[in-house]
Amino acid sequence: MKVTVQGRSRHFRTVSYDGATNSVLLIEQRLIPHQFEIIASRTFRETANAIKDMIVRGAGAIGATAAYGLAQGARAFRGRALAQFEKHVRTVYETLKAARPTAVDPVNAMNQVRQIMSEGETVEEQQALALAAAEEFANENVRHCRQIGEHGARLIRGGMNLLTHCNAGWLAFVDVGSATAPMYEAQSQRKKFHVYCDETRPRSQGATLTAWELAQQKISHQIIADNAAGHLMQRGKIDLVIVGSDRTLGRTGEVANKVGTYTKAVLAKRHGIPFYVAIPLSTIDWNLRSGFDIPIEERDESEVLGAWGTVSRSRSGVGKRPSARRAYVRVANPSSTALNPGFDVTPAELITGIITPAGIFKPGELWARRRELGWGRKTSK
Amino acid sequence: MKVTVQGRSRHFRTVSYDGATNSVLLIEQRLIPHQFEIIASRTFRETANAIKDMIVRGAGAIGATAAYGLAQGARAFRGRALAQFEKHVRTVYETLKAARPTAVDPVNAMNQVRQIMSEGETVEEQQALALAAAEEFANENVRHCRQIGEHGARLIRGGMNLLTHCNAGWLAFVDVGSATAPMYEAQSQRKKFHVYCDETRPRSQGATLTAWELAQQKISHQIIADNAAGHLMQRGKIDLVIVGSDRTLGRTGEVANKVGTYTKAVLAKRHGIPFYVAIPLSTIDWNLRSGFDIPIEERDESEVLGAWGTVSRSRSGVGKRPSARRAYVRVANPSSTALNPGFDVTPAELITGIITPAGIFKPGELWARRRELGWGRKTSK
Repeated sequence: MKVTVQGRSRHFRTVSYDGATNSVLLIEQRLIPHQFEIIASRTFRETANAIKDMIVRGAGAIGATAAYGLAQGARAFRGRALAQFEKHVRTVYETLKAARPTAVDPVNAMNQVRQIMSEGETVEEQQALALAAAEEFANENVRHCRQIGEHGARLIRGGMNLLTHCNAGWLAFVDVGSATAPMYEAQSQRKKFHVYCDETRPRSQGATLTAWELAQQKISHQIIADNAAGHLMQRGKIDLVIVGSDRTLGRTGEVANKVGTYTKAVLAKRHGIPFYVAIPLSTIDWNLRSGFDIPIEERDESEVLGAWGTVSRSRSGVGKRPSARRAYVRVANPSSTALNPGFDVTPAELITGIITPAGIFKPGELWARRRELGWGRKTSK
Repeated sequence: MKVTVQGRSRHFRTVSYDGATNSVLLIEQRLIPHQFEIIASRTFRETANAIKDMIVRGAGAIGATAAYGLAQGARAFRGRALAQFEKHVRTVYETLKAARPTAVDPVNAMNQVRQIMSEGETVEEQQALALAAAEEFANENVRHCRQIGEHGARLIRGGMNLLTHCNAGWLAFVDVGSATAPMYEAQSQRKKFHVYCDETRPRSQGATLTAWELAQQKISHQIIADNAAGHLMQRGKIDLVIVGSDRTLGRTGEVANKVGTYTKAVLAKRHGIPFYVAIPLSTIDWNLRSGFDIPIEERDESEVLGAWGTVSRSRSGVGKRPSARRAYVRVANPSSTALNPGFDVTPAELITGIITPAGIFKPGELWARRRELGWGRKTSK
């Protein structure tokens, strides 16, 4: 998407590749919204660390990063011995896989690249195919997000107020995003609407990433505390909810997403507000049979006990000239502990529709439509 | 309640009065949990500012503060002319009333003081009666909280997990608290239970005040992000919700409380979890006919856009030796704004019961029981 850097508007992808230096280029997401910086990762090990250290995050974005990382690692090999090359590629694969052991996207992305590579008969051919496959993976991610946008934009009418939770924006993908895709498409159709961003404690991805994205695209928005959505719904101020998903069960239509999503779905149901989940096909899990089987990661309690931000000298000066100095403040009572589940599961009955690249479906329809939704593509655990 | 200050356990009230200096003494709640300090407010304007700036907050505590503030203002008057005195008292009243427009407690408290004052025939008599009335208001507040605790403790069984939102603890009253009163009483009955404290963004009263209170009283507890309660309910980890209220409508049973309360009530209803609201009688508004008529204060957006806490050098050191330096960090995207409604309204149908000093009632019963619930006491808009 377009980003204004030093007064000039330029297009960037979250993840891209530079052939001349065999580098993976990444937006340094830990600095957003306070700084915009592209880092060049020059080796597959650096790329694995970028995933691990969350320079890049979001299902689609880490998938593409791993795909490029695999091609990058393959291309760094010098020599013609296929057996040695294959051994090297396995090391690259395992290194990138180990960077985020619970995520399924890097593994699926790398399997796709390896499958295509394996058609090459020489090292050189395989290296070329690896890069082509990684580029295709990234491009498909962007196409899918655009298709989500086209389908989803039909849900947005002029004058609407939308709610979104966490960041399922272009920073979480190669470009365009999932939950934000319908917003960007509706904007390009010159529809006027307003977005409430849940701040999304404890990591505040709504207040930082989504708000930054919407500001860059000049979409009218306001950040709200996660507590405020119920009140706004009660007062008729929210017309449509669109969120993303970390894992959607193809068999049941249940949706795992950032903690707090379930709460918003319950509220939307009570108020008769349409609640949509936007997902690329790679997010669908065709194996699990119940949302209760989805492992819910418990994250570090420090996230709940405090907040990261930039320190400013005076409260009134905040926002005008934010200091570049990032700091963690401890908010909570020092002698108390916290419980920090990272995700929750929203049942199908609370979901109006799932916006996919192939169209909008009722959650209960996914399984019947599984062939057009990518079921049967090679994926592994 | 008892507070351990420099290793010594002493009893403090949230609000008290020092006759020698005509000062209202307040726990500086903005420093909790990092520092414990009593401040002396020497004029009624300072007292109004203490309410406005949230040095003191919570329905009962600001009621008592306004009662003492009115007596303080009345006692500061020099002269014997009743007409001038009454004009002065009206100024004091209006100044204190304007400090927190959503709250009903300061108004009810001051009306009670004025009614009693008006029986005095001289300025001096009225000044003495004002102080006596304020002291009685504070003492009654403590008695009422104790009675809430006795009734509410019957709802708590050993092994239960409770949820509370914001701070309706002793810091929100003169002592003991409303939502926490049943917990303190159950503890004194040696019941074992666990409390989840919603952090309660954007001001984090749960993470700071409630967690601090529970830690002081050695009650087992954990702080959770406001987003996490839905997930915990879904997984069967919450058995009972008790919250406070800033204003409860005697005619309809609707409850205005800190933003996010309504969300928890909707979630509790869905999961069949009992949802109780604990209130002293002064919180009941017998006039309003609809929750939609309750003005919902919009607070400063900086609360949503960042967080206050203590800065520590390293993240891992946090909690062990918190630095005394308080700082505000800007979390959100610098070019984004926020919407910050301070309260929301929970309809009667979501409330299992209202715990009052006179017993536990269904919200729809309040009007029928109005005589025993203090209806007819002088209150005004």
